[in-house]
Amino acid sequence: MDKYNVVEIKEDITSRNNLFAKEIRKKLAEKKVFYLNVMASPGSGKTTLIVELLKRMKDDYKIGVIEADIDSSVDAETVSELGVRTLQMHTAGACHITCQMSYDALCALGYEDLDFVILENVGNLVCPAEFDTGATENLVLLSVPEGDDKPKKYPLMFRVADVVAVTKTDVAEVFDFDAETAKNNIKMRNEKATVFFLSAVKNDGVEELEKYLRTAIERVKNA
Amino acid sequence: MDKYNVVEIKEDITSRNNLFAKEIRKKLAEKKVFYLNVMASPGSGKTTLIVELLKRMKDDYKIGVIEADIDSSVDAETVSELGVRTLQMHTAGACHITCQMSYDALCALGYEDLDFVILENVGNLVCPAEFDTGATENLVLLSVPEGDDKPKKYPLMFRVADVVAVTKTDVAEVFDFDAETAKNNIKMRNEKATVFFLSAVKNDGVEELEKYLRTAIERVKNA
Repeated sequence: MDKYNVVEIKEDITSRNNLFAKEIRKKLAEKKVFYLNVMASPGSGKTTLIVELLKRMKDDYKIGVIEADIDSSVDAETVSELGVRTLQMHTAGACHITCQMSYDALCALGYEDLDFVILENVGNLVCPAEFDTGATENLVLLSVPEGDDKPKKYPLMFRVADVVAVTKTDVAEVFDFDAETAKNNIKMRNEKATVFFLSAVKNDGVEELEKYLRTAIERVKNA
Repeated sequence: MDKYNVVEIKEDITSRNNLFAKEIRKKLAEKKVFYLNVMASPGSGKTTLIVELLKRMKDDYKIGVIEADIDSSVDAETVSELGVRTLQMHTAGACHITCQMSYDALCALGYEDLDFVILENVGNLVCPAEFDTGATENLVLLSVPEGDDKPKKYPLMFRVADVVAVTKTDVAEVFDFDAETAKNNIKMRNEKATVFFLSAVKNDGVEELEKYLRTAIERVKNA
């Protein structure tokens, strides 16, 4: 049960995709834009965290947000209320964002004058990890209710993460979630990932991730 | 942003897949086996619910479980402790179960003498919905922490569901989850779906789903 057509097709698509991703990263670097790809399961708190980060950073940087969704515009409505430049991308059933989709969205948003672009990927802990979007960094969320074992079961997602935010820590006791186990499971997949623990709803721990992102934005600006 | 290669390829794969799915369903009906495909996001409580159902039903029916996972064998270890015939299928990175994978697993498990086979699909609210596994019915889980808006954002999954179980209802207040809104959103996608609300951990409401499944198994046996 090791090889199926679908895997071979995917390999072909991803290799083409990776070539184009490098080009996007080059363009972004030239324009000094930090592009963050946010990936996670459905309902892990991506939009809530993005909204909290926007509130804290939108007065200091020119920020744009690309909301990817299969069908609805729920998240774009939430985000645009903050007065941040927002684009809703409908994937028409697709479970991930390819490089081409990512670049089309960047152009439709207008990225060249921005400091910081956030892509909220489709809620999916599997497929988006296979497609490099051309982002400067990948932020992966793991929400407490999902369980501390998830990095064991979804290896690639945690392998491609530059930063992991464990979200909804305010309910850790209700769900018998062990932070140390979670951290070890993440590190097992990816030693280099920076890990933050936070609750966006309770506004607890977000400042550490904010600091990390501010440093990253400044690094890109001054490169 | 409406058409990409990847979608066309998928359509080709799924049409071939659907033909074979019908054949599987015919074979299962001949052997009077009820085959349930369980789909949901990562960490929505699939394994916990399956374990609770097995405890209640394993003395009355011959049951087998197929655990699909990208890499680990965490769930098969949990389920096999109950003394139920269990097969771990590793998808080698694949985000869904095709018909071929489903049939290979049924044969490796040995399905012909069973009354009831449960397939725990890969944790993913997008891709598994696109591939008919040949199952008699699809059970989709929506866990409370994911939010009551998820049927809006993942339309196909709820469209292909015969039964929806809203899980982790014991934490509904913590998450500001509205049961009525959830039900309306599910029904918007799929009028015919039967909806149950339950907490497998608190053993609350599981009996209704159990009754539904017992009726379905008997219907297949007596067909």
